[in-house]
Amino acid sequence: MSDIKRIYNFSAGPSMLPLPVLEKAASEMTNYNGSGMSVMEMSHRSDEFENIIQSTEKDLRDLMDIPDSYKVLFLQGGGSLQFSMIPINLLRSSWKADYIVTGRWSKIAAKEAGRFGDVNIAATSEDKIFTYIPDFESYKDNLSQDADYCYIAYNNTIYGTKFTELPDTGKVPLVADISSSILSEELDVERFGLLFAGAQKNIGPAGLTIVIIREDLLGFASEKTPDMLNYKIHAETDSLFNTPPCYPIYMAGLTFRWIKNQGGVKAIEKRNREKASILYEAIDNSKIFNCPIRVKDRSLMNVVFVTGDTTLDNKFVLEAKSRGLINLAGHRSIGGMRASIYNAMPTEGVAALADCIKDFEKRL
Amino acid sequence: MSDIKRIYNFSAGPSMLPLPVLEKAASEMTNYNGSGMSVMEMSHRSDEFENIIQSTEKDLRDLMDIPDSYKVLFLQGGGSLQFSMIPINLLRSSWKADYIVTGRWSKIAAKEAGRFGDVNIAATSEDKIFTYIPDFESYKDNLSQDADYCYIAYNNTIYGTKFTELPDTGKVPLVADISSSILSEELDVERFGLLFAGAQKNIGPAGLTIVIIREDLLGFASEKTPDMLNYKIHAETDSLFNTPPCYPIYMAGLTFRWIKNQGGVKAIEKRNREKASILYEAIDNSKIFNCPIRVKDRSLMNVVFVTGDTTLDNKFVLEAKSRGLINLAGHRSIGGMRASIYNAMPTEGVAALADCIKDFEKRL
Repeated sequence: MSDIKRIYNFSAGPSMLPLPVLEKAASEMTNYNGSGMSVMEMSHRSDEFENIIQSTEKDLRDLMDIPDSYKVLFLQGGGSLQFSMIPINLLRSSWKADYIVTGRWSKIAAKEAGRFGDVNIAATSEDKIFTYIPDFESYKDNLSQDADYCYIAYNNTIYGTKFTELPDTGKVPLVADISSSILSEELDVERFGLLFAGAQKNIGPAGLTIVIIREDLLGFASEKTPDMLNYKIHAETDSLFNTPPCYPIYMAGLTFRWIKNQGGVKAIEKRNREKASILYEAIDNSKIFNCPIRVKDRSLMNVVFVTGDTTLDNKFVLEAKSRGLINLAGHRSIGGMRASIYNAMPTEGVAALADCIKDFEKRL
Repeated sequence: MSDIKRIYNFSAGPSMLPLPVLEKAASEMTNYNGSGMSVMEMSHRSDEFENIIQSTEKDLRDLMDIPDSYKVLFLQGGGSLQFSMIPINLLRSSWKADYIVTGRWSKIAAKEAGRFGDVNIAATSEDKIFTYIPDFESYKDNLSQDADYCYIAYNNTIYGTKFTELPDTGKVPLVADISSSILSEELDVERFGLLFAGAQKNIGPAGLTIVIIREDLLGFASEKTPDMLNYKIHAETDSLFNTPPCYPIYMAGLTFRWIKNQGGVKAIEKRNREKASILYEAIDNSKIFNCPIRVKDRSLMNVVFVTGDTTLDNKFVLEAKSRGLINLAGHRSIGGMRASIYNAMPTEGVAALADCIKDFEKRL
């Protein structure tokens, strides 16, 4: 372990990475595994890099228990490019898609999809500022039987909610943005047609997007689709159609091994539930802080809380900062506070924030 | 300086980075500038990162003398995505574009553009396996007066050629792929409507694409264009429309400062010309090695040479490797040898390769 002064960074993303991962990367920066060069300097067609990308994929498959009938793609462009690639590649028959809008990002995804086909907003929680996830019973009749896919954002980074019950979409492929929850809890991949995640929350540096797609959904993009936006082309070339984001892939591989060393996703989920409990308990026990999210829909990764008084919110954010707990201001669209406590946030960091909440209240 | 055993890596990209740049990155990996975190962990909306991206842009503007009437964009997706973004954004009036095909990449770019408009191959050097750059006089009458743009690959990574005379396209904006020559020699930006470069040759890790675009060319993408493929959206948000590839941008910034410390592009070009001379001279003086490229069109960055005998080529590549000179095999499409000698390749590495060429011949 290093004696470097590190802080607890509650940023929603890019966000904390495990210190051992960063230290390993630093130690290999000028000479990876005796190769005499950095991973950044390696040809993406070299044996060394092929080993890196293949073992990274294998470790992800192990961790998420991804069936062989799914392809894993390492792409660029973040969630924002997926918002377009999904309709471009999956609209194929009815040219209709269902969207469950539970926050800013799913709303933007639905808007983007509207460029390419018919979008049916089957449910939205915008009526209550996205503070809950609509119950399946309330919208199941709004789902289109012939939709080409149904889209959800599994965990909502800005509003601090998550799905605890997946919509039963029958034969319609379920597509989920898992950018802020990938590898934080167990997930049954077979429930989905497509999963995607930007790396910059639970995996590694920004600039890498992971797409997990069921093979039967490949091959429907039109002739007019740019090659770079066609999942099939990336699938057929094992993500080496063009030069991939090699260094972020390497960093992802280091993180995957770190998760394995932590006991895998099951163990990580247990710790994440403990971390979230510490924080929600401190908030629920407080007389001035309040979590506006419906209890059953609370996110394990993004804990949103408010005092209802902007001046007080700002004062708290500053006090926390003075204790080395940073980036606690809520998203600019909703204000208040948000603590993002991804896999790499140690329990000690969460406990320190819970203490800060208690102390702040005491001294008011 | 480090005593780490580093090798001379002649890979066409990703490729060598300056050792001081890698060492600086390693030293700041867990704690950037006293922030208590890695650049990888920083919110892209934080003051620290805004400083990084702004100073990186400023340094690039200084180095390339980019006028204020041009926007600098930090994007993802590499040259391959630019092959689509260019026609999507620049086809606007005649829906016609001229392409000068001087190698594999410009050929692919032309094919991709054909999805979006009419492509006129104004010239090609495929008749002689791309071993020369067509003379302007030979194709000037093939250029379309009403083209929406004219496209060239300024330096051809695979074939080892470069433009020494730019086509005079009059009012038609000239678009150039400068992936393998950016910052290696002086270039008059005002001659171009758009320049782009993947970072992984002369700048930093793969996953960052730099686009330099004249402002009057923004705003022509159709309503159906995905937001992520619209230059105007990235220009209006200073490349922060979505999470950018933060770490590659930081690495690019370190490289830009290294170039400044080397005396800027003028000084770098002088050294690059010396490096290329050492190598071409060794090849030209050899009885067994031969550079198939027309002398006036020889690249400063990618030096292609052959013996004409595959077995001998392979033997040379292996002998070079045993001396710590690696990745000298030519592109899989043409064979032979290729030495990519980008900015970060020290003169010593080039001299060692020249010696290897001479010694190999002597002992035959």
